[in-house]
Amino acid sequence: MSREALTRMTKIEVVARTVDSDAVRRQIVASGASGYTSLPAVTGLGHHGAHEGRALFNDRDALTLTITVVPDDRADDLIEGLRSLLERSTGVMFVSDTYVSRPHYFS
Amino acid sequence: MSREALTRMTKIEVVARTVDSDAVRRQIVASGASGYTSLPAVTGLGHHGAHEGRALFNDRDALTLTITVVPDDRADDLIEGLRSLLERSTGVMFVSDTYVSRPHYFS
Amino acid sequence: MSREALTRMTKIEVVARTVDSDAVRRQIVASGASGYTSLPAVTGLGHHGAHEGRALFNDRDALTLTITVVPDDRADDLIEGLRSLLERSTGVMFVSDTYVSRPHYFS
Repeated sequence: MSREALTRMTKIEVVARTVDSDAVRRQIVASGASGYTSLPAVTGLGHHGAHEGRALFNDRDALTLTITVVPDDRADDLIEGLRSLLERSTGVMFVSDTYVSRPHYFS
Repeated sequence: MSREALTRMTKIEVVARTVDSDAVRRQIVASGASGYTSLPAVTGLGHHGAHEGRALFNDRDALTLTITVVPDDRADDLIEGLRSLLERSTGVMFVSDTYVSRPHYFS
Repeated sequence: MSREALTRMTKIEVVARTVDSDAVRRQIVASGASGYTSLPAVTGLGHHGAHEGRALFNDRDALTLTITVVPDDRADDLIEGLRSLLERSTGVMFVSDTYVSRPHYFS
């Protein structure tokens, strides 16, 4: 299998407070994503909202990194849902391309 | 050093049951990759194989995320090996581009 | 929000010995980055410096994965700073593209 045989997907990573990460995972599942991976007990500082004049995270918050991979055609709605959720709680979201060998696992 | 001075590599991430992650790491080392990073004690749900009618992971499995970076010319064989391994066990693999400053570390 | 509405940023990931990761985080903050995420207690092997004839990491080192996201115009200086730091200690750095919905959080 060469890289050309892989299928492009959208990878979404969210760093949020652990108390908010259940809502993140519910949003992911509600979007029709077939799964997620969570890494609890991460630590972090910022990325602070400079325009809000307060820290988004500080060293005392317990954080969770949640990763999901979805087909491109499901990505837009999930990105919008998570962006809206993260405005009400706090957190950051990173979106990038990734490639998988078995695209039906993610549909 | 600007980003233009960096060298493109292939980053491979595998989420598998912790009991299977030794086999993932052995496959990585056998491919000639110069190293890996493992994140144990991650949790996850899915990404279920929808066509198989069963969950690929469930909330009770202990999972490990294993990351490796290899030169593009070694990527194809490793991707094929891991794809084959993950068919026999269970797990998901994400392949993406990344860039490094010292490519000889990865060759 | 579609993916087209997102803003490209540079994601930098560093795997270094936990004893060196304070210096990694200080370098990130000194560059003007607005935050970072740290994942302690990862394990790894290599990526060994083949030309140096010794392992960069071994199974006994406690490692930390540190992730930051910066605007492209701040990336070059930070990449150069981290590259220089990792020459004096040990570690590996991966640079990739990522996209965010609220770019002012990272500026």
